[in-house]
Amino acid sequence: MIYITRREIFNAAHRVYREDWSDEKNLEVFGKCSNPVWHGHNYTLYVTVKGEVLPDLGYVADLKSVSTIIREKVIEKIDHKNINLEVDFMKGKIASTENIAISIWEELEQHVRKLGAELHCVKLEETENNFVEYYGR
Amino acid sequence: MIYITRREIFNAAHRVYREDWSDEKNLEVFGKCSNPVWHGHNYTLYVTVKGEVLPDLGYVADLKSVSTIIREKVIEKIDHKNINLEVDFMKGKIASTENIAISIWEELEQHVRKLGAELHCVKLEETENNFVEYYGR
Amino acid sequence: MIYITRREIFNAAHRVYREDWSDEKNLEVFGKCSNPVWHGHNYTLYVTVKGEVLPDLGYVADLKSVSTIIREKVIEKIDHKNINLEVDFMKGKIASTENIAISIWEELEQHVRKLGAELHCVKLEETENNFVEYYGR
Amino acid sequence: MIYITRREIFNAAHRVYREDWSDEKNLEVFGKCSNPVWHGHNYTLYVTVKGEVLPDLGYVADLKSVSTIIREKVIEKIDHKNINLEVDFMKGKIASTENIAISIWEELEQHVRKLGAELHCVKLEETENNFVEYYGR
Amino acid sequence: MIYITRREIFNAAHRVYREDWSDEKNLEVFGKCSNPVWHGHNYTLYVTVKGEVLPDLGYVADLKSVSTIIREKVIEKIDHKNINLEVDFMKGKIASTENIAISIWEELEQHVRKLGAELHCVKLEETENNFVEYYGR
Amino acid sequence: MIYITRREIFNAAHRVYREDWSDEKNLEVFGKCSNPVWHGHNYTLYVTVKGEVLPDLGYVADLKSVSTIIREKVIEKIDHKNINLEVDFMKGKIASTENIAISIWEELEQHVRKLGAELHCVKLEETENNFVEYYGR
Repeated sequence: MIYITRREIFNAAHRVYREDWSDEKNLEVFGKCSNPVWHGHNYTLYVTVKGEVLPDLGYVADLKSVSTIIREKVIEKIDHKNINLEVDFMKGKIASTENIAISIWEELEQHVRKLGAELHCVKLEETENNFVEYYGR
Repeated sequence: MIYITRREIFNAAHRVYREDWSDEKNLEVFGKCSNPVWHGHNYTLYVTVKGEVLPDLGYVADLKSVSTIIREKVIEKIDHKNINLEVDFMKGKIASTENIAISIWEELEQHVRKLGAELHCVKLEETENNFVEYYGR
Repeated sequence: MIYITRREIFNAAHRVYREDWSDEKNLEVFGKCSNPVWHGHNYTLYVTVKGEVLPDLGYVADLKSVSTIIREKVIEKIDHKNINLEVDFMKGKIASTENIAISIWEELEQHVRKLGAELHCVKLEETENNFVEYYGR
Repeated sequence: MIYITRREIFNAAHRVYREDWSDEKNLEVFGKCSNPVWHGHNYTLYVTVKGEVLPDLGYVADLKSVSTIIREKVIEKIDHKNINLEVDFMKGKIASTENIAISIWEELEQHVRKLGAELHCVKLEETENNFVEYYGR
Repeated sequence: MIYITRREIFNAAHRVYREDWSDEKNLEVFGKCSNPVWHGHNYTLYVTVKGEVLPDLGYVADLKSVSTIIREKVIEKIDHKNINLEVDFMKGKIASTENIAISIWEELEQHVRKLGAELHCVKLEETENNFVEYYGR
Repeated sequence: MIYITRREIFNAAHRVYREDWSDEKNLEVFGKCSNPVWHGHNYTLYVTVKGEVLPDLGYVADLKSVSTIIREKVIEKIDHKNINLEVDFMKGKIASTENIAISIWEELEQHVRKLGAELHCVKLEETENNFVEYYGR
């Protein structure tokens, strides 16, 4: 078993808040991250895939295919977008780093499996000081 | 003459566009950076100050005072904000990295001078691949 | 289960040595790290906390509270200090990166639990070439 | 149990290909990484060793000894070399990042054990966007 | 006047040597960098362009156009290549970092001028410890 | 004219203070950096040398010789040391980043000249947030 990781970057606006709360209540709970007119980040995404090394090819999965999946299923939907308003896989969810990471896992899991590998970890860095790791249920 | 630099970080939403153009025209000229519902970045700001080393103190200017000025005049106004809608020193300007850097220079210049030093450079990184440097007129 | 990590920085002086050994013996075993008049580092600390995402809030634990605990229990005690002489949680211990990491774990564990989450990992980087990870007993 | 990691760098040329395939077939499967006249990388190697902290010394293993082993068994053989043509532990293997990482593990495992510690992970970064982790069988 | 910089990455094999010298003589003068069967690097290229901010657009030059020029004139020719054998603009030159940087300047200068801006600096990092900056004659 | 830069790292303890002031006065002026029992840093040093590219060799100066000079004249004297107590070129000076950078310039200048090149800049990073650049008088 070996683990390979691909890094991708996206830039997006978001707001951490609940629709059923007032701006005041959101500000009280989520702080400046709930700014009603948005803020944003350069997110760094690390997708780790695991499997056996294929002896004929020397790799677990073609990293170019892994990258293509990440770009098609995640980056094209979220890069230079408003996460709350425009990203289908975030509809109706609180746009926390935790929820974005879990949703990216759900977007990728079955497509990685079709490559003959298994999704191991989605790591999402929001700033140089904060990141989240999700390994599935 | 010696140069000292202080790094600060801020996260913000923005949109590169002109108010007097349609969304289509803005998209054509500015691309995905003109998304009408915003996107955002982790901006990294480097402020460089120059002067002679004060022999009694061993420094050009107290770096804590430089940091305080940057935080009061720039970071508090722009961090976790929408640059187009909420930042007074960007009102009526196209929110390009170039214009943000120039405006930060204008915010800081006279306050740095009061410390007995001179503003030398404002460097603003928008992503790991793009940055702007401004040295004044 | 999801994992969130907060990065914090501190700068400190230290010496790796045993009080019951001579300077020569310490030098022989610990090398230049045992310099009797100290040396120092910019330490980078990564604290990882795990738990279930709270559905009402979208996070495991308020990252601001995690940061406050790390600052109160660790950073305020160790930043700009002499680790051997001034840090209560290092008293009587060899100031190796391993022992600092384990002691930081012990300082944080119960306070993280009060937030409703669980401490998962303390990672401590001493230089860009060396780091230690501790996951508890 | 605690984990300590040492980072080392090496620069090398390589080509991902199978000798029993034509250049065309290699290009089709491995893409530009199979360039017959080579390309190269700055590889970053992270070697993680685990064990109990020795109470008399405050560490798992002398990091200088770990570094010496990595340099003697890996870096001296691979740095500024052609991985396909000159590195004994890569003879007859496809020079993928996965296979290099596994081979480095095999080079190091028994020597780390002689230090009284256990090899935990070999992480090998080929570029800022791609890395592999191997934890043994 | 403002300065904008675009970062690009390429991976390549090379050898620092003179054709009119023996391998022994090359080894004596250039050390391990003259390995006859090549070694390689992840090169990081920073291209800095200067000009006045266009008031109608808020930028000096469209960074996408700058990036396109760098990719067409440099990256496509050098990425995943053997610098000595395959790169037209390095033919007959010693493949030192200095000469690669100067040659990249010569490739880019006139094309940047067509964008209405001026090439200011080519910075080329060979490793995290070594880099070269060239500002033209 | 071309500029080449070599990066080196050193770890040291220091204290920013004046001997002719009380601890209270030092604390008032220099803050926590004047801790009487020291603190420390991982310093990153960038030494930039300039000159014409030698057509026969493809470089300005042999980078290995530049590195040897930096190690002999600076790193061996300051690495894992107490800057105030043990470093000859800092005797009697306030151990600010500014003064360390100027003193390193003075240590290196004539030795770089003997290599046929000219010292251009000494850049010294004290933390990821603070650095100093000195270009000589």
